[in-house]
Amino acid sequence: MKTFDRNEHPHRRYNPLTGEWILVSPHRSKRPWQGQKESVTDSSLPQYDATCYLCPGNSRSNGERNEDYQDVYVFDNDFPALLNDDIATDINTDPLFRFQPERGINRVVCFSPAHNLTIPEMEVSAIEKIIDLWTQQYLDLGNRDFINHVQIFENKGAVMGCSNPHPHGQIWAQSSLPTAIEKTQKQLEKYYQKNKTSLLKDYLEQELKLGERIVIENAHFVALVPFWATWPYETMIISKRHFGSLISMSNDEKRAYAAIMKGITVKYDNLFETSFPYSSGIHQAPTDKAAHPEWHFHMHFYPPLLRSASVKKFMVGYEMLGEAQRDITPEKSAEILRQLPDIHYKKR
Amino acid sequence: MKTFDRNEHPHRRYNPLTGEWILVSPHRSKRPWQGQKESVTDSSLPQYDATCYLCPGNSRSNGERNEDYQDVYVFDNDFPALLNDDIATDINTDPLFRFQPERGINRVVCFSPAHNLTIPEMEVSAIEKIIDLWTQQYLDLGNRDFINHVQIFENKGAVMGCSNPHPHGQIWAQSSLPTAIEKTQKQLEKYYQKNKTSLLKDYLEQELKLGERIVIENAHFVALVPFWATWPYETMIISKRHFGSLISMSNDEKRAYAAIMKGITVKYDNLFETSFPYSSGIHQAPTDKAAHPEWHFHMHFYPPLLRSASVKKFMVGYEMLGEAQRDITPEKSAEILRQLPDIHYKKR
Ligand SMILES: O=P(O)(O)O[C@H]1O[C@H](CO)[C@@H](O)[C@H](O)[C@H]1O
Ligand SMILES: O=P(O)(O)O[C@H]1O[C@H](CO)[C@@H](O)[C@H](O)[C@H]1O
Repeated sequence: MKTFDRNEHPHRRYNPLTGEWILVSPHRSKRPWQGQKESVTDSSLPQYDATCYLCPGNSRSNGERNEDYQDVYVFDNDFPALLNDDIATDINTDPLFRFQPERGINRVVCFSPAHNLTIPEMEVSAIEKIIDLWTQQYLDLGNRDFINHVQIFENKGAVMGCSNPHPHGQIWAQSSLPTAIEKTQKQLEKYYQKNKTSLLKDYLEQELKLGERIVIENAHFVALVPFWATWPYETMIISKRHFGSLISMSNDEKRAYAAIMKGITVKYDNLFETSFPYSSGIHQAPTDKAAHPEWHFHMHFYPPLLRSASVKKFMVGYEMLGEAQRDITPEKSAEILRQLPDIHYKKR
Repeated sequence: MKTFDRNEHPHRRYNPLTGEWILVSPHRSKRPWQGQKESVTDSSLPQYDATCYLCPGNSRSNGERNEDYQDVYVFDNDFPALLNDDIATDINTDPLFRFQPERGINRVVCFSPAHNLTIPEMEVSAIEKIIDLWTQQYLDLGNRDFINHVQIFENKGAVMGCSNPHPHGQIWAQSSLPTAIEKTQKQLEKYYQKNKTSLLKDYLEQELKLGERIVIENAHFVALVPFWATWPYETMIISKRHFGSLISMSNDEKRAYAAIMKGITVKYDNLFETSFPYSSGIHQAPTDKAAHPEWHFHMHFYPPLLRSASVKKFMVGYEMLGEAQRDITPEKSAEILRQLPDIHYKKR
């Protein structure tokens, strides 16, 4: 019987934030690729685009005109998935046809007035302004009595369903805890009840000792490829201090958070020398007015690319019906990212 | 306060097969689309392609030559995600770094010798041969003592990561129950313990009474858009009789299953008059030698397209970080599919 080698042998890893497993097939990265290639995004965008509905001063589809904003800008989504209407319904009890009305608010956040300036190319001080706006939105939306969760996220790149390259993210605030949050909350809570500590604090301590999955570390944050990463170059930013949400961040922490966001996205752009697509988002305490000592602020980056700017990992058949699967080990991905330059390739 | 109308108001629906919720935003389908478009697949493929590693008589990347097969053909995947090696490992107990070696067998199943003949264009009798082969594989692989689950699936179309248009599917057989199966098994079991009946039998009875989500019904099977469908045109084939796996199917049932598979995939191709991409797969009883009275044979179809042959639904940012989300109601999708012709558009 051979002895287990995680760089050679198929294995499953457990994600303690979701309670689910993923399949790792380290030997499989040798597979040739004859399938679909993504078109690589044109990198020569203008600083201002008269047809862009996110550029300052331009008008949007509903006729409203954007302010002539100087740094960040937030407005209600013109095509919201959630509506701010209080809807009455009979309670339905059939366990096979359960539903509930859902109330919420969707917003769009422009990260910069420049049409062509994504996070990796911004100044750290400009990223701090995004964090300030996120914090204020989390507070403002979260304070409403019908908003129990505020999801802050970014879809970057056409391959992530983003229909406008102008740097922007979204906020979906709603009355229920979304499925993924409920899972993570349950896992964090179980751990907290048992150990009276934060799962992610304990995890981070061990990761810092091991070192092998760390990509960037600064005074207050760490960016790493989690042991249970699903996407080829998935990373997570974790705060060193145990706190639940944006509103608990000190000014020093905010600056360090902005710096590490820039740091990890520069690495991403440098990986294939392209504007690297991803979905990212913050997981933090719900705004249901309960104490949430179990929550520990973190941010996920889920990038689809696998081998080059045009070849992505497809989460399809087996992954949809069975289990998430990856071909390159998290340790190898972390090593590759760690060794990339810290200066953006366009500035070298 | 307005009264709930599921065709107007955002709401969440509960999937009793996974225990998870999805967000439905019926009003949102009016949203314009300026994002990525998929390239539409060339429909003029030859019947035989000398460069295709799945066509009869051709050689594969490992030098082996395919048999000159006449109907269906199965072989071990040349780039398997799982390996059939028995691997020893120390049991690891750290709850934050859990892993386990995974043993399994991956196979490729060619559905037809013709390079250009997909399921919707096949004769029902030819589809029966695919079902025969699946059944034999489920038996053969499932009988090995280290195989506890056999996942049969198909990735169809470049947009689903399929790298070869030759009609084929895959089988991933392995020692653990994949995450999605474990979830469904738990849900089916809970229901069975409580009610002493099959969840899907009870569900199907109600759906047949309601009618609004049914797409096709024949003597032994129903194809419907589930109440909790995630993908825009997601469907499920459910057997009317309560049985756990392919091996319990009568000959009549097999024929009816082949017919409904053809029926639903013809509807799919007719929807946008294109070779409709999807991932499909069978969910059936695990092969762990336990009795599984809770299991009820069914097949999922997860197609990504939303508005046309080139515009898909992106499950990204909010969906990855929060919860699956759809823009068109399952009832509307079912109605659209139901009203499509039963004859393939190429044959009209
Ligand atoms: O095995 P294939 O067809 O090469 O690969 C395809 O299906 C697999 C199983 O769903 C996925 O893991 C791959 O990402 C996908 O590209
Ligand atoms: O809101 P957008 O950018 O138009 O749309 C994009 O992000 C949303 C939130 O993740 C998704 O629901 C859409 O499928 C995607 O295309």
